[in-house]
Amino acid sequence: MSDLIERTREKIGPLDANVMKAATDYQDKLLKPAGSLGWLEAIAVQFAGITGQLRNSAERKVHFLFGSDHGVYASGVSASPQEFTRLLMEFYARGEGCGITVLCKHVGVELRLVDMGVKGLAPHPSIDSRFRLMPEGTWNLHCSLAMTRETARKAAEAGIELTGEAKRDGFQIVGTGEVGMGNTTSAAACIMAALKIQDPVLAVGRGGGLTDEAFEKKKRVVAEALQNHEPDPCDALDILTKVGGLDIAGMAGVFLGAARYRLPVVIDGVISAAAALLATLIAPEAREYMIPSHISQEPGYALAARHLGLTPYLNLGMRLGEGTGCPIMMQVVDDALALMNSMNTFDGVSLESEYRKGIRA
Amino acid sequence: MSDLIERTREKIGPLDANVMKAATDYQDKLLKPAGSLGWLEAIAVQFAGITGQLRNSAERKVHFLFGSDHGVYASGVSASPQEFTRLLMEFYARGEGCGITVLCKHVGVELRLVDMGVKGLAPHPSIDSRFRLMPEGTWNLHCSLAMTRETARKAAEAGIELTGEAKRDGFQIVGTGEVGMGNTTSAAACIMAALKIQDPVLAVGRGGGLTDEAFEKKKRVVAEALQNHEPDPCDALDILTKVGGLDIAGMAGVFLGAARYRLPVVIDGVISAAAALLATLIAPEAREYMIPSHISQEPGYALAARHLGLTPYLNLGMRLGEGTGCPIMMQVVDDALALMNSMNTFDGVSLESEYRKGIRA
Repeated sequence: MSDLIERTREKIGPLDANVMKAATDYQDKLLKPAGSLGWLEAIAVQFAGITGQLRNSAERKVHFLFGSDHGVYASGVSASPQEFTRLLMEFYARGEGCGITVLCKHVGVELRLVDMGVKGLAPHPSIDSRFRLMPEGTWNLHCSLAMTRETARKAAEAGIELTGEAKRDGFQIVGTGEVGMGNTTSAAACIMAALKIQDPVLAVGRGGGLTDEAFEKKKRVVAEALQNHEPDPCDALDILTKVGGLDIAGMAGVFLGAARYRLPVVIDGVISAAAALLATLIAPEAREYMIPSHISQEPGYALAARHLGLTPYLNLGMRLGEGTGCPIMMQVVDDALALMNSMNTFDGVSLESEYRKGIRA
Repeated sequence: MSDLIERTREKIGPLDANVMKAATDYQDKLLKPAGSLGWLEAIAVQFAGITGQLRNSAERKVHFLFGSDHGVYASGVSASPQEFTRLLMEFYARGEGCGITVLCKHVGVELRLVDMGVKGLAPHPSIDSRFRLMPEGTWNLHCSLAMTRETARKAAEAGIELTGEAKRDGFQIVGTGEVGMGNTTSAAACIMAALKIQDPVLAVGRGGGLTDEAFEKKKRVVAEALQNHEPDPCDALDILTKVGGLDIAGMAGVFLGAARYRLPVVIDGVISAAAALLATLIAPEAREYMIPSHISQEPGYALAARHLGLTPYLNLGMRLGEGTGCPIMMQVVDDALALMNSMNTFDGVSLESEYRKGIRA
């Protein structure tokens, strides 16, 4: 394991249990039956445990969108032309109205575009190309490794570095998204490898929308890749090297970086969840910094989320990618923090002790 | 049935199918795989069907919070002192930081407080007391009718009138909430009556938090009230008269008024869902104007939602009441409309036909 990943791992600690205890006690003093705000309370308490502060703001929001091409595209596992990866990155960069650009603008989230290896993508002032590790995208995991171990390491390190920059820039919450034709195939393979699942029917979905024939092909490709490569289920870099993607590796780095820099980080759909799962293979405590958003339609999502012990908060039938669940969930996080910060306590209003007793029952 | 309710019912029509078809077609032209924004697309299409316009705004938001006391409180079905109904209404009116006041302020929702019959509540400039129909609250449904049929009618009419005023004031979306110690008992009884459910274990929950003993009592009270009164499952006013509440009746009126005035209306938890269900007994098409928010922990909620064919979008473990799910859901509605209004279509960018074919697959 590299120096940066190892150094990052060593600096990832648990949430601040004392502040979480204080936050939970404070929640119980607010003008409501104890626990009645459900997971809005849990989010505010988690946030406090991450920052070490009782009261928090998530006003400054950043969303990382990693673009990368996937060699496994050549095996016929995607419904869209591969050029869409490049085309969509160009649209985001130009500020065209795509799902993620509209949501980030509407919610007030800074969008940071990272080219990890998008075929034919020209430099653009709005695209960060420092981590363009494989200009033609990954190799085809069905026939060979997806990338070298060194590249997997560098891609994950990119995510750590980017998150460190976001911290220094004052951001308070981080979103994770991607674009890359074929990347639900890589994500499903990563989840199966990490969870030692053999039957692809459990984890492989139709992605952007596949025909029955292509769907069968996709399942076969994933199963064969795992049989051929036998990735080590305990070694995230081995999984990324053999069946991963540059976007997944970059996002795994963001999850590690978020834990290292004590930033809450929002999970989107199946690709983001695969990256989150791989990050916890490196640093199990990274899980405590994650906030799920919506339940993805891809079957691998539920497997990863269940393993991580995370229950998604939004049920919106989304399967667009780009991290579109993140800005929506960031609004809910803002709501949770507003309640924590602005609700009155029993101490703040004149109430006889009888009332206090009653409302806490 | 009264003149106003009958006149309202007659004016409730279906959603505009032509505009919905146009909205669906338009969604399919946006820069994303068809259907990949899931229920965000469905919300935007529903909104279009309600207003008759392809593009919409929900910027102007109003939330009705009905306060009322419930005579069934005397049967020991609530964990909180009954004075809490009055006390909380006073807090809302003074702008104290309660769940709903904080969320409405944070999201930008105008809060309209309606006193339908809160014991001991003094007039206040921020509380609408025109519909204070039973100053001591309802009678105890365990021993007698909850109210006269005339009062049930007037309470529902109040909701219709209030919604008409909101329409004239330019609001574009309506939320529904309540405060009233004991009202989860009335709501469970209404849902059981409308759905002809006999076993209270299916619909009765612990409300704000009951002991095992009080919980058993609550189930017995509901079962006995339904056996004694035998409310007509097809007659919403009969159900309200026998086992309802003034808050539930007022909210049922809001659901009717929203459909009449073609306003989207957000359902909160079990009490709001009970009112929604009763509104559809009067006018089945009112259902098309409803937007569910979160899944309540109260078991009656799921029964009502399933019967209405509505799947909640948020899973936040909330059970506070006050309509606290509504402002949160209104943000998601805003997101859905922003996507519909601001995403580019394929026509808006230069794409070869090959790409169009690909992304629609």
